[in-house]
Amino acid sequence: MTRIACQQLAPVFADLDANRRLTVGAIQEAAAAGADVVVLPELITSGYMFESTDEARAVAIGTDDPILGEWAAEAALADLVVVGGFCERGEDGMVYNSAALIDASGLRAVYRKLHLWDREKLVFTPGSELPPVIDTPAGRITAMICYDLEFPELTRAVALAGAQALLVPTNWPLFPRPEGERPSEVVVGMATARLNRMAVACADRMGLERGQEWTGGTTIVAADGWVAAESRGPGLVIADVDLDAALDKHFTELADAFGDRRPEYYAAVASVPAAANAAR
Amino acid sequence: MTRIACQQLAPVFADLDANRRLTVGAIQEAAAAGADVVVLPELITSGYMFESTDEARAVAIGTDDPILGEWAAEAALADLVVVGGFCERGEDGMVYNSAALIDASGLRAVYRKLHLWDREKLVFTPGSELPPVIDTPAGRITAMICYDLEFPELTRAVALAGAQALLVPTNWPLFPRPEGERPSEVVVGMATARLNRMAVACADRMGLERGQEWTGGTTIVAADGWVAAESRGPGLVIADVDLDAALDKHFTELADAFGDRRPEYYAAVASVPAAANAAR
Repeated sequence: MTRIACQQLAPVFADLDANRRLTVGAIQEAAAAGADVVVLPELITSGYMFESTDEARAVAIGTDDPILGEWAAEAALADLVVVGGFCERGEDGMVYNSAALIDASGLRAVYRKLHLWDREKLVFTPGSELPPVIDTPAGRITAMICYDLEFPELTRAVALAGAQALLVPTNWPLFPRPEGERPSEVVVGMATARLNRMAVACADRMGLERGQEWTGGTTIVAADGWVAAESRGPGLVIADVDLDAALDKHFTELADAFGDRRPEYYAAVASVPAAANAAR
Repeated sequence: MTRIACQQLAPVFADLDANRRLTVGAIQEAAAAGADVVVLPELITSGYMFESTDEARAVAIGTDDPILGEWAAEAALADLVVVGGFCERGEDGMVYNSAALIDASGLRAVYRKLHLWDREKLVFTPGSELPPVIDTPAGRITAMICYDLEFPELTRAVALAGAQALLVPTNWPLFPRPEGERPSEVVVGMATARLNRMAVACADRMGLERGQEWTGGTTIVAADGWVAAESRGPGLVIADVDLDAALDKHFTELADAFGDRRPEYYAAVASVPAAANAAR
């Protein structure tokens, strides 16, 4: 079993040092709880509600920043995987909404959000590479960020690449929902796990920021599609998840989520350009 | 608003005449309730638990069969759309797990299940055409069958083709699930609606058949991803659903489920062959 922890945190807007302390403490707390994997929210180094690229750039960090270095030091100390969101200043000067994938050996990969939500388009440059799928001591993992999860083409692609766990730093703005229902983003996470027989762990955030409320939807879904742990409050959410289950795509002896695909019929998914859809 | 009805029925195994009466009565009941669309379960003309192709062939019907003719007559009388599953004997002599799409003008299209579940592979020939997406008086609709819904490539494809409502005749065999949870197939239907901003209506079945129990998971999901009506018991499930909502793919002013797609990154979905996945 793999012990996955998500930390549902409230960052301090634009305060790198406060968020450094917050996140390092959060990783330490998860490590003390025996976590093999810790997921931190989207943009947890900086907060989210930027009004401009310049404002984001002022707190954007490079991949050699000491904050990520401290995350890596904690990962090495406790031999765990850390996946967390940060506001990245690229070598190209652009500002990205990124996630760091770290294990005991250090920074393994950086993913830049491919699907920017709403006003993020006015602040960030979208990524231009697929989420990395990497082998770690905790299993074969990948990361995407928030709205990315709502594109089944992307979640399927990483599952086809063998990801056993999809780790999702997120900032889900609060939307109304019918009483008794889980957040719709969580429903999507459950379906994503079910369809792909891949664990999905989403670390959401808390804390009013510039008037914006958040869903606080942190949820860990096992590879069978059922919720292993969830919380709508602050702090640690933790579950033991069988990632080996993600290696077998069978629903039954003769039904196989991947083997039963008929990709020769799926061309529309990859070939219909976004612009054509938008114009519809 | 479009009034969608699903009929959660228990067919009589291999009794074409009993199922003719059952389904005609079910359409009449839905029509009396003001339905614009009626969805009947998978293989509702025949039942499901065939042990061989020969056994299925014995009750397979052509598209000119009087049963579909009676469905069409009811559709014409009440000016409604009927989508229902039937055991089809093709002109090629093969036996298909099919759905008829009927409106007041008659049989508009037949869809043959692309993704055969489990032992269906030993009985039926899989389809070789995408689900038809057709304009009807009730809106632009499509149909797929049961396990098809678990392939997001296919649900996305019909949404990209403009389907406002995905109508799903289904026979969901009963699987255990955590207390208080909806069936996992319903969770998938909700996510499919949310992601594609397309209504999804699934008509499941009841009735023990050759020892097999069924989920009885009939659910109508609106284009916003929330359940409009559901029942775990027999009979009519009905909801008024705004299908115009499916014409607008915006989540917010600047977030667009289709416009935000980045298909240049989705090639893996269409290009990784099923055989390669199965061998993984």
